[in-house]
Amino acid sequence: MPTKDKPLAESATLLDVARLAGVSAATVSRILNGTARVTEDKRQAVERAIERLQFRPNFAAQSLRSGSTRTIGVLTQELESPYFTRGARGIEDGLQGSHYAPIVVPGHWNPAEELDRARLLIARRVDAMVILGGNLTDEQVEDMARKLPIAITGRELQAPNVFSLHCDQVDGACRATRHLIELGHTRIAHISGPVAYPDAVDRRDGYMRAHSEAGLPVDPRLMVVGTYMETGGAEAMHRLLDAGHPFTAVFCANDQTLWGARQVLDARGLRVPHDISLVGFDDLPQSAYMTPALTTVHQPIYEMGRAAAHLLLAALGAAPAAAEPVPDLHLVVRGTTRRL
Amino acid sequence: MPTKDKPLAESATLLDVARLAGVSAATVSRILNGTARVTEDKRQAVERAIERLQFRPNFAAQSLRSGSTRTIGVLTQELESPYFTRGARGIEDGLQGSHYAPIVVPGHWNPAEELDRARLLIARRVDAMVILGGNLTDEQVEDMARKLPIAITGRELQAPNVFSLHCDQVDGACRATRHLIELGHTRIAHISGPVAYPDAVDRRDGYMRAHSEAGLPVDPRLMVVGTYMETGGAEAMHRLLDAGHPFTAVFCANDQTLWGARQVLDARGLRVPHDISLVGFDDLPQSAYMTPALTTVHQPIYEMGRAAAHLLLAALGAAPAAAEPVPDLHLVVRGTTRRL
Repeated sequence: MPTKDKPLAESATLLDVARLAGVSAATVSRILNGTARVTEDKRQAVERAIERLQFRPNFAAQSLRSGSTRTIGVLTQELESPYFTRGARGIEDGLQGSHYAPIVVPGHWNPAEELDRARLLIARRVDAMVILGGNLTDEQVEDMARKLPIAITGRELQAPNVFSLHCDQVDGACRATRHLIELGHTRIAHISGPVAYPDAVDRRDGYMRAHSEAGLPVDPRLMVVGTYMETGGAEAMHRLLDAGHPFTAVFCANDQTLWGARQVLDARGLRVPHDISLVGFDDLPQSAYMTPALTTVHQPIYEMGRAAAHLLLAALGAAPAAAEPVPDLHLVVRGTTRRL
Repeated sequence: MPTKDKPLAESATLLDVARLAGVSAATVSRILNGTARVTEDKRQAVERAIERLQFRPNFAAQSLRSGSTRTIGVLTQELESPYFTRGARGIEDGLQGSHYAPIVVPGHWNPAEELDRARLLIARRVDAMVILGGNLTDEQVEDMARKLPIAITGRELQAPNVFSLHCDQVDGACRATRHLIELGHTRIAHISGPVAYPDAVDRRDGYMRAHSEAGLPVDPRLMVVGTYMETGGAEAMHRLLDAGHPFTAVFCANDQTLWGARQVLDARGLRVPHDISLVGFDDLPQSAYMTPALTTVHQPIYEMGRAAAHLLLAALGAAPAAAEPVPDLHLVVRGTTRRL
């Protein structure tokens, strides 16, 4: 039997943890369930014992024993963001027929708020949790994964009980920019997302990589920062036009940025794609209904949400471990780009 | 002192209810908190006693006593619907600074599922609940309002502990259609929502009322049914064009219907608004970023969400009872309509 099929060591029991931490088994159990109101000292002792013994609770058995709450917590960022709601919809669809219901709370890209909301979900005894994006540290996520299985999108994280779902953002941005270069554009502007977000930096890197692959210089005066929101895209487009450095195409860091930027072009009498070509990122459902419809990079956020649900159901023993692959990012060419 | 200022009778106590129902006060308390695992017999006895004694729990005091969970449940319909997420965003903003967090669950316009999800929220001990739309009966809502304060949008419902927030949909649809008539249109089609939804019927009634006010006949061949979704709008527009009965304008039952319908016009070589004028309903955030931007009826769903949050915080004693008025529906004239 090959080594990789050997099950993870699960020899340490809850009682071992309790003994080492000097607390009762009930206390350990309550801490694992997230229902404990115990002193910080005790909590830390239990967490140290869990760490030392490499104790991994058997969530499926635990769920049966304790009476599962049949809920999957979803920590999202913005309730109104079409990108994250598409992911939440994927989770919902992935839970169809499983008797598990999603409970959604927003974290607003604010680490303190996210942690607070994640704890709220755990205190409400969700059986598992999906984290859509956000700014929690890897350590915080790993820490929570000791209490319940966690799926997380938007980062790569190898840890026990953590399922991470991630797409190569650099590659996606590179494809978007390469498409414009292949159409003959050489003066390509970029409206980025906030530089504090890793995926905004990745997309900017992809924009630059496509230039260097093609042997084209990047004019830093054509790189402006937006907010990932429509208003930020509009403002950035005003700045680009007012600066007066010529460009014939723009790679926008996401679709919402493009929507705002296009409105400004329209208001200032510039036609898309006749005068300016635009490429977005995300492929939001609404982007297909704009006229002309958006050329954009499709992110499989719906599929990631669905896969997250399936992985967690499997971890809870509520579904077979059918890990369907999440498709790659790909470019969708529609009406906002044309040959120069 | 005028009668209307007299406080509601709150003379019956929890002990009176327990005595009449023949159960312990703790059982009544647990049923009110939604945490009870009691027999159906006992539950019904308690509910009958509550009804007979007109007992109204003091939620603010109860919350203090029992240790509030500091959460507001939000029963929405579709996690991905831009209309409902706008309402959820209003609730979030209304809770800002209150230390209450929203927990969102979807009901999918399915009464059984909605009831199930509402019970899930109550079992998770949310302090109060907002119901965004949906198909629960008035009786079901009133029943839940015995356990916790409830705000509900999309219907008028006078009941204790229920705050209903509603706009006149007939009036809104009438304004949309009247706008087209004032621009000289006489052959106005209507793509309605599913006729099982009261607001879809209301909007169709408004469309007809505007015609009758203007002394214009309605051609029933120009009335087709959509789904409130983009795909339904697209399909309905194909049917309208294929039928060959002339029209110069369309009142679409919501913005998503319009997005789908417009895409079909574009694909079939008809220009908006040059060949066909379109009016939508909802004024979704994305509708302002379409080119041309949508002429549509603005629904104050964000403001309703915010007001719902404020009303519930006041009911819980967590905020002053500052009931800011929710603005009326109004028509927003942008680029998809023009004079015939």
